[in-house]
Amino acid sequence: MKKILMINTGGTFSSRPGPHGLTPQMSSEEILGHLGKGSTDVQLDLEDYCSLDSANIRPEDWCRLSLRIGEVIAVYDGVVLIHGTDTLAYTASMLSFMLQNPPIPIVLTGSQLPLGAPMSDAADNCLCAIEMASSGMGGVFVAFNRKIMLGCRTSKVRTISFNAFESINYPNVGEFNAFGLQLNIRHDFVSPFFRIQTDYSDRIAVLKLFPGMDPDIFRFLQEHGYEGIYIEGFGLGGVPFLKGDFTAEIRRASEAGLPILVGSQCRYEGSNLRIYETGQRILECGGIPVHNMTQEAVVTKLMWCLGQTKKREDILRLFQQNLVQEVSFL
Amino acid sequence: MKKILMINTGGTFSSRPGPHGLTPQMSSEEILGHLGKGSTDVQLDLEDYCSLDSANIRPEDWCRLSLRIGEVIAVYDGVVLIHGTDTLAYTASMLSFMLQNPPIPIVLTGSQLPLGAPMSDAADNCLCAIEMASSGMGGVFVAFNRKIMLGCRTSKVRTISFNAFESINYPNVGEFNAFGLQLNIRHDFVSPFFRIQTDYSDRIAVLKLFPGMDPDIFRFLQEHGYEGIYIEGFGLGGVPFLKGDFTAEIRRASEAGLPILVGSQCRYEGSNLRIYETGQRILECGGIPVHNMTQEAVVTKLMWCLGQTKKREDILRLFQQNLVQEVSFL
Repeated sequence: MKKILMINTGGTFSSRPGPHGLTPQMSSEEILGHLGKGSTDVQLDLEDYCSLDSANIRPEDWCRLSLRIGEVIAVYDGVVLIHGTDTLAYTASMLSFMLQNPPIPIVLTGSQLPLGAPMSDAADNCLCAIEMASSGMGGVFVAFNRKIMLGCRTSKVRTISFNAFESINYPNVGEFNAFGLQLNIRHDFVSPFFRIQTDYSDRIAVLKLFPGMDPDIFRFLQEHGYEGIYIEGFGLGGVPFLKGDFTAEIRRASEAGLPILVGSQCRYEGSNLRIYETGQRILECGGIPVHNMTQEAVVTKLMWCLGQTKKREDILRLFQQNLVQEVSFL
Repeated sequence: MKKILMINTGGTFSSRPGPHGLTPQMSSEEILGHLGKGSTDVQLDLEDYCSLDSANIRPEDWCRLSLRIGEVIAVYDGVVLIHGTDTLAYTASMLSFMLQNPPIPIVLTGSQLPLGAPMSDAADNCLCAIEMASSGMGGVFVAFNRKIMLGCRTSKVRTISFNAFESINYPNVGEFNAFGLQLNIRHDFVSPFFRIQTDYSDRIAVLKLFPGMDPDIFRFLQEHGYEGIYIEGFGLGGVPFLKGDFTAEIRRASEAGLPILVGSQCRYEGSNLRIYETGQRILECGGIPVHNMTQEAVVTKLMWCLGQTKKREDILRLFQQNLVQEVSFL
């Protein structure tokens, strides 16, 4: 019989109505009561990590969760992490970098309605996560709405539908149908070696561009010890290069040794800085392309890389590598 | 015979390969040569406004284009605006606010490949835009990939596919099939009165949240004369309220009279601050909900509103109103 560890961090999944709206409250014991002990044929151990609205999950939680999972990875066949949906994709991405090439499945799940609500998706998502955690396929995954997605490719794209998450620029790893879990692809590890590395820096900034945006914010970020900046540009990754010139700021910051990443605010199909004049200018100025990574993967990879090195050249090199299937180069 | 004015601003549509990648170059005369004069049965007048990669389009262009369209609105049956795809949705949104309830169709279009490229979508998109501009249905629209979308609901969601734009949280206004243009819905004007109002402020900032983000950036924005801030929160609009507390910053800034808008970084289905504790805290602190508007509509509506008033209470009131079908309240 497979041994699965279920770690509860809170979220809608375990929420109950309170005086200030829905608030995470249930312990993992109560969660198990709702699921029904006979509903799975695994040995399920429970652990309460916290009971948070995931808007309050922070990088230090990613670090502690990774260390905890690292401790038990030789003891269990899989881990299920109950998590609020708001930042679930960020956590899934960061765990992918902190726990590279894990020998067992680490499966994040959550729900759009609390476990106790009629029509809730919570029990269903949890049972799918347990099933995936029993599959023997190592990696960090998200189970949601009967889909299994690779953690570092997952984004929350809908706020109300049960179909809240999508695998961006990457196929679903698996799906559930009447025959149970169907795995579409083998998860190809970039490296066979399991590695825990939890250092990170949170001194990063995300700049989502809009027409007329003042580049003065770059000065503030440099003067206040920010160590990396991600620019969500337009389309394939364009930024203004005439009035309100961002390429000049990218050049100045890059020459000062600050890594400046450039991607797209379009959700699908990624960025490519080689096609248009604006993209080529960004590359010439030292902008680092993020290709087709999700926003969540870019942010967490940048934080994680800055935990290993502060050198712009090293960050550039790491962003030219596919560490955990987070990126494909077009 | 219908009289249509086609204004060219550049973009991929009119680009040719140059030493630094694709660069907008063709005049509207050359564009017409490519389309073939006999391909439409309208009288098409041409005007070159600029020849820009739309990453370089700025709010002052929105103002000048609106004033120019306002000048000719009584003379033409429709206007087609050729525009780069990168910021097309921003321009379409802002023209919706600057030119409210126009009596004629104003139709933006562009393309994913230049007019001269094999398999280009440029001529097709342009002919669809001309057809919509001849339809007699007033409003600001986007024509792309055989769809007609309401300008203030359009977002660029894909960077490579011809199906680059989507109408977000709103049905397509029309579609082209073998029978020509099929209009799905009548565009309901909120008011019957055409109004040109081109004042705006570009002293706004967009903060896309991520876990671990430092709220210190609020101080910088307040000290440097920023007049409005849009926070792209998590899920239904959540922000951290424990460590790295954003609700306290929202309260402080709101009490100082700065309008702080709060929405979702999820692309679909919008935000709702009444469901969760985190959302209710934001409302109590003075955060202004943006409901299900696109990022492009939020940014341009905020700029436009700040052109009419700097008072937080007035901005709040304007964001509680549906001005041009840019928002639906859930």
